[in-house]
Amino acid sequence: MRRNVIVGQSGGPTAAINSSLAGVYRTAIDRGAKKVYGMLYGVEGLLSERYIDLADHIKSELDAELLKRTPAAFLGSCRFKLPEIFEDKSVYEKIFEVLDKLDIEAFIYIGGNDSMDTIKKLSDYAIVTGHNTKFIGCPKTIDNDLALTDHTPGYGSAAKYIGTSMKEIIRDSFCLAYDNGLVTIVEIMGRNAGWLTGAVALAKGEDSDGPDLIYLPEIPFDLDKFKEKVEKLLKERNSVVVAVSEGIKLKSGEYVCELGNNIDFVDAFGHKQLSGTATFLANFVAGEFGCKSRAIELSTLQRSASHAASRVDILEAYQVGGAAVKAADEGDTGKMVVLNRLSDDPYQCGTEVKDVHKIANDEKLVPRNWVDQEGTYVTNEFISYVKPLIQGDVSPIMVDGIPRHLYQPEELKCRNHKKRK
Amino acid sequence: MRRNVIVGQSGGPTAAINSSLAGVYRTAIDRGAKKVYGMLYGVEGLLSERYIDLADHIKSELDAELLKRTPAAFLGSCRFKLPEIFEDKSVYEKIFEVLDKLDIEAFIYIGGNDSMDTIKKLSDYAIVTGHNTKFIGCPKTIDNDLALTDHTPGYGSAAKYIGTSMKEIIRDSFCLAYDNGLVTIVEIMGRNAGWLTGAVALAKGEDSDGPDLIYLPEIPFDLDKFKEKVEKLLKERNSVVVAVSEGIKLKSGEYVCELGNNIDFVDAFGHKQLSGTATFLANFVAGEFGCKSRAIELSTLQRSASHAASRVDILEAYQVGGAAVKAADEGDTGKMVVLNRLSDDPYQCGTEVKDVHKIANDEKLVPRNWVDQEGTYVTNEFISYVKPLIQGDVSPIMVDGIPRHLYQPEELKCRNHKKRK
Repeated sequence: MRRNVIVGQSGGPTAAINSSLAGVYRTAIDRGAKKVYGMLYGVEGLLSERYIDLADHIKSELDAELLKRTPAAFLGSCRFKLPEIFEDKSVYEKIFEVLDKLDIEAFIYIGGNDSMDTIKKLSDYAIVTGHNTKFIGCPKTIDNDLALTDHTPGYGSAAKYIGTSMKEIIRDSFCLAYDNGLVTIVEIMGRNAGWLTGAVALAKGEDSDGPDLIYLPEIPFDLDKFKEKVEKLLKERNSVVVAVSEGIKLKSGEYVCELGNNIDFVDAFGHKQLSGTATFLANFVAGEFGCKSRAIELSTLQRSASHAASRVDILEAYQVGGAAVKAADEGDTGKMVVLNRLSDDPYQCGTEVKDVHKIANDEKLVPRNWVDQEGTYVTNEFISYVKPLIQGDVSPIMVDGIPRHLYQPEELKCRNHKKRK
Repeated sequence: MRRNVIVGQSGGPTAAINSSLAGVYRTAIDRGAKKVYGMLYGVEGLLSERYIDLADHIKSELDAELLKRTPAAFLGSCRFKLPEIFEDKSVYEKIFEVLDKLDIEAFIYIGGNDSMDTIKKLSDYAIVTGHNTKFIGCPKTIDNDLALTDHTPGYGSAAKYIGTSMKEIIRDSFCLAYDNGLVTIVEIMGRNAGWLTGAVALAKGEDSDGPDLIYLPEIPFDLDKFKEKVEKLLKERNSVVVAVSEGIKLKSGEYVCELGNNIDFVDAFGHKQLSGTATFLANFVAGEFGCKSRAIELSTLQRSASHAASRVDILEAYQVGGAAVKAADEGDTGKMVVLNRLSDDPYQCGTEVKDVHKIANDEKLVPRNWVDQEGTYVTNEFISYVKPLIQGDVSPIMVDGIPRHLYQPEELKCRNHKKRK
């Protein structure tokens, strides 16, 4: 590389997204990039010329190691979808003006479906206008719903945390015995795809029966059948543990979390505050069976638990970041790096680049045959798929008993960051 | 020791309670106990003669190591308060009948305030009736609210998890910038004592500003002042993170979680399901400021997260279990083992035994001067107190990417365990 690189992060935080950032930085420097800029808040920040020089933040090898262990988007993130060129050409002109000003050779964007849409549009625009910046996407999402790649960095660490926490929750749930039993409903992220929710099955092993029921959003949820299942389990066991995706829906298409609508809070701005899926179902079973019930949401903990990250995931995230820079340096553009699994056991996985036009906005769901007939548990195929992705640990760098992260850029803290200059 | 030992666990689960169990077992065997029995579900289970021989479960040194790393009460727990002798003598007669049958020399009970009440009553009864079993209490509670002991095993691991998770939540909260800012309310356990909630301040360090506001249950909560504080912070920062104890109350004595009462769900049994404190406050700030808000409950995760346990805590729990057996073997009864801190830095702490009559049912709260004037943050005294307790890690024993626990006794799973024979 002879000129500069700019990298941005987009979409929801993960425990591995900063490892990709570290990979981009390292490889860009190794390949001769003069400067590596980081967009603050993705392309949205870039539009108002918010960026940093990463060398001001990654000053040593230790800093790079800390960055790999730092959860959530180090650079800040956005959920900004580029307009179509005919809708607002000025957005494109502004972006390319900034890229020219910074003498950018490669533009790397770490994110999910929306981010790949950005890569697609910018690379198309560059080709049409004869601009020579290369645009490469780097996959990232805990949801694991990106097409064409075997899996996405971020998913493995979230799955490991979910499996570990689920196992601890199950153990906890058996401690105190209640007269009519205890039902625990654990709500996991994933609006449309059940990859994260299915990972609760990792809790199952020689030393744990695992959760009793698992409900993925891909399969319509039947409240009556759920009731029957729980009733039967409550007759046999002191504690019943159910995992549900936040996005489970009835056959009618209604979200389960909306069933409690009538009791929800409407704030002064008229926003309806939905109670969660788990809360609704916990109240439902308590009402039906007079049992004790508990709703647990893993919430943002599941996407940012760097302290329990998967080594495979963190290393692959790093590798994918490096591969993105390499691809750009070799002249690719409009591509996304994908992970290509060669075998489960021993696990072998490499990187390739694929045309981003084939990826953008396509959602990869859990195959129907990876869920059992009744739709209440994942199959062994699912487990064999996810298990290699949670292997190994990345020991946190502990300072005084708490994991250390890389200093956050000061610019992310103050208000009004997004205003265009 | 010439005869047998019986040990029980009582009250809420912790990440360290099984390390005390391992300490009791090891020391009892080393001191010559023939058998070490475990009560299933504490004294409540003992009344229906539910117990196991621990040698059937701890068969190797590796098993003992797994037990130390297994969250929640291995033996099952109870929230059973012994009646006064004049209320129901038969309960006492039944317990001592079982103790005689099992030839018990020492009765060790691992738990909090209620458990120490049990030790007090049983040791008094033994003295009055001339029975020679020794009764010793072993402190345990994540709430850290036991009197006379510097701190309680279980607290350090919970504090470490809370500090670590809070730091990850804060980092996550800064990723996406919202037009009117984001307020995250994190709810921590502790109905009356703020020891756990204060531990969120451990997130603060060179690399993190820590949470913005901390509300302990010891200090009356003022909704108007809270509103002012958040409003001011929202003008300065993209993200405001507030930690609240589940038990915060208004000056009037009303719980904050009860303020949302009117919108709560009443089930078919007439049980009112309270929305949590965090949910109420998150809805409140969204309504007041039109900001994005988020409620996170650390829920049972904070008490059972063995995967992130504190080494100091796990070792002290083990030590306290051993000290309890030693005290009984040396003839003590009606005593509780306490932790006696000699210095903060370097941290030095030993065990002693104290009269359980002085401990039972007394609740230790966070001193007023360990919270700042305004009641919205803990002071350095608090931090100096808690920091030594979260030091060091106990690496989980990982099998296929997930921490391994000791097999759970089968008896805990099936229904109707508590029925008296």
